[in-house]
Amino acid sequence: MKPSIPKGTRDFSPVEMAKRNYIFDTIRSVYALYGFQQIETPAMENLSTLMGKYGEEGDKLLFKILNSGDFLRGVSDDDIHQKSTNQLAAQLCEKGLRYDLTVPFARYVVQHREELTLPFRRYQIQPVWRADRPQKGRYREFYQCDADVVGSDSLLNEVELMQIVTEVFRRFGIRVCIKINNRKILTGIAEMLGAADKIVDITVAIDKLDKIGLDNVNAELKEDGLTDEQIAKLQPIIQLSGTNNEKMATMREVLKDSAIGLKGVDEVEYVLNTYGKTNQPTDACSLELDLTLARGLNYYTGCIFEVKALDVQIGSITGGGRYDNLTGIFGMPGISGVGISFGADRIFDVLNQLDLYPASVVSATRLFFVNFGEAEEAYCLPIIAAARQAGIPCEIYPESVKMKKQMQYANAKQIPFVVLVGETEMQQGKLTLKNMETGEQSLVSPEELLEKVF
Amino acid sequence: MKPSIPKGTRDFSPVEMAKRNYIFDTIRSVYALYGFQQIETPAMENLSTLMGKYGEEGDKLLFKILNSGDFLRGVSDDDIHQKSTNQLAAQLCEKGLRYDLTVPFARYVVQHREELTLPFRRYQIQPVWRADRPQKGRYREFYQCDADVVGSDSLLNEVELMQIVTEVFRRFGIRVCIKINNRKILTGIAEMLGAADKIVDITVAIDKLDKIGLDNVNAELKEDGLTDEQIAKLQPIIQLSGTNNEKMATMREVLKDSAIGLKGVDEVEYVLNTYGKTNQPTDACSLELDLTLARGLNYYTGCIFEVKALDVQIGSITGGGRYDNLTGIFGMPGISGVGISFGADRIFDVLNQLDLYPASVVSATRLFFVNFGEAEEAYCLPIIAAARQAGIPCEIYPESVKMKKQMQYANAKQIPFVVLVGETEMQQGKLTLKNMETGEQSLVSPEELLEKVF
Repeated sequence: MKPSIPKGTRDFSPVEMAKRNYIFDTIRSVYALYGFQQIETPAMENLSTLMGKYGEEGDKLLFKILNSGDFLRGVSDDDIHQKSTNQLAAQLCEKGLRYDLTVPFARYVVQHREELTLPFRRYQIQPVWRADRPQKGRYREFYQCDADVVGSDSLLNEVELMQIVTEVFRRFGIRVCIKINNRKILTGIAEMLGAADKIVDITVAIDKLDKIGLDNVNAELKEDGLTDEQIAKLQPIIQLSGTNNEKMATMREVLKDSAIGLKGVDEVEYVLNTYGKTNQPTDACSLELDLTLARGLNYYTGCIFEVKALDVQIGSITGGGRYDNLTGIFGMPGISGVGISFGADRIFDVLNQLDLYPASVVSATRLFFVNFGEAEEAYCLPIIAAARQAGIPCEIYPESVKMKKQMQYANAKQIPFVVLVGETEMQQGKLTLKNMETGEQSLVSPEELLEKVF
Repeated sequence: MKPSIPKGTRDFSPVEMAKRNYIFDTIRSVYALYGFQQIETPAMENLSTLMGKYGEEGDKLLFKILNSGDFLRGVSDDDIHQKSTNQLAAQLCEKGLRYDLTVPFARYVVQHREELTLPFRRYQIQPVWRADRPQKGRYREFYQCDADVVGSDSLLNEVELMQIVTEVFRRFGIRVCIKINNRKILTGIAEMLGAADKIVDITVAIDKLDKIGLDNVNAELKEDGLTDEQIAKLQPIIQLSGTNNEKMATMREVLKDSAIGLKGVDEVEYVLNTYGKTNQPTDACSLELDLTLARGLNYYTGCIFEVKALDVQIGSITGGGRYDNLTGIFGMPGISGVGISFGADRIFDVLNQLDLYPASVVSATRLFFVNFGEAEEAYCLPIIAAARQAGIPCEIYPESVKMKKQMQYANAKQIPFVVLVGETEMQQGKLTLKNMETGEQSLVSPEELLEKVF
């Protein structure tokens, strides 16, 4: 019987890993250009750190680690029979696997507050675990790839995060639209209508404008319990269109009586204008004010953003926003922050669908030496060493088996150049180099070899 | 109350991460030069994959993950009261955290056998977890950094692993001695003495020669139950000295009646000779036959090796060897392999003690822009964008707070260059660049800036 892995988890093959490393290395380099520093936190956190941070549903989705040794010590029969599954689990388990990178980061900031110089720009690329029901595209172990700036209210941080997003997707060659909104604008709209509880219903209904048309949107809003007067007031927002500047002008008019709403518009305007000083909107990347964007309302407090790929039908591939009081849950109030999270799994799929991986990503070894026997091997070894010294990834087949088998190996690894050395080559102090793509063969000296395959 | 992390686990700060990334990236680049490909396996494996692979003690050290949902379903009161802790744990938990990278790799090879082209050269850098009692230098979560070639008996693989070790420590600047031995030699010695069960005692005693002298070693062997005749036969081995070639000549004589022992000497000779074709022994790295090396006898079957740092008192910093039948435990016999494992935590300590980290590792951001206000910020932003485009990691303080605070930030991050822009600079289209190490200031154009800090 073949061994297997737990459902919802994955092995990553060499090709998948090469592609994932390309994604993570690209993001890492851009983060570094902006002065973000990497941290790592342990896979296991105390359950007291994790519990209660993701809602009741989240608590159930935490993977809990059975205490070592006699885990039943102190657990009575009554505990077993009368306590809820969750309560009993808390008795049997002190630790759990991290569910995201945000709560461990908040814990990190509080625990290490004395060592940190604020603003702290950190990034973190690590797996997280959720006991979710696995389904297509949803895994029980997956990587998150987060960058946050904490300890600064400046909107320049938002701008730099937008620049990072722009640069990362430029490097990938993925055309994107960055959607931006501001939680304060949504609060302003609710305030203006006197309907704070309806803001989610409103954004959901507005979002359907393209699909179902204005009349149906208005009908839906009525069903949601909005009065005719409220719906009338909403018309300029539902039908909001034009450039970002035109949209902002409309919003200023609509929200003229809401201080918080106007502040939201101010913030978006600053971010758009400042971003515009260094980044012109192009076909490959534009920044668009989108009032229907309403992600994680309970968490975010200022600007929010999401990135949509233009050429692939897929959910948002990056998102983030500003939040207040990240560390309040651990007794350190007043730390505001703003962050983004790249969706590595979706980016992986988009790059695959658009076939955007550079060729060098998939075929790592450039040069393969066929092994024809002891003498030939001895002849090749110093040449191989020199090639590696020059930075060229090389392999020699470790045994002098049939050439067909060796070539199959080179093909399976998609190695672009193959070296053949027999009697003739050894007598002349040369090598035969075969370009596997063109089939072309040439007799070269060891020095010429390095030039040809570099 | 400050939040904390489970004992035996660690947070890695930005500086620690930068150093660790330097270690892993160096090892990764060298692995890649030799055609090794990275894989990753899930943190959680089925307990059926892990249990029974590390001995009874190992089973206890596995972190087990409580089943999701109603984990008590199917568990009777009798189970709870009568079963051993381990049996009950197996009922409550289907999954566990990986304990090393070897068993998951064996599982991977068997599970994916149809997709793999042998020989398969894989490397893997991932954390492992052990419920060991934490102590200095021993953690419950730590990274392993393994490379293996499976599906090839060729000793050329051993040679290439020695080359990898040499190149990795050359890049680190750590002077090392690579100790090599062969399990078959040890078997041969036991065969010659007719004392197969005594081989560990013998190597332990021999290893003390320098410390306690020949007479005491012989006394210890006698205590271990060896006869005078056996001890007499052992004398050439205990007093083995000279160059590798001299040692091998002695061993050939001693082991002349043991076929397997002579095979072991042949193997070591091939590895030493072939390695010597491309690598001359230097002060920085030598390869030495050491008969007292006896790591993991039950697992390894051919060459074994260990790396000792010459300038720091610390245990072995890398080790490995050849094993037969890695995948036999999962029903796929006959696959031989050879592997090495770099001890990242110890290498981290050695690099720290010898102060060998390149300066660029610790200070990532090269250029810091002091923020003097809105106009200055607007003036700087396109210059910052250009510097980043040129690959220079830059930061601007996100708010125009007091200069002292901004400089403290730049100092804390050890940023080597600071840019100051005020009225004067803006009027002239220039910037003031300060070298933080020398204190030198100069007025430069944006173009000159890039040249100066590159």
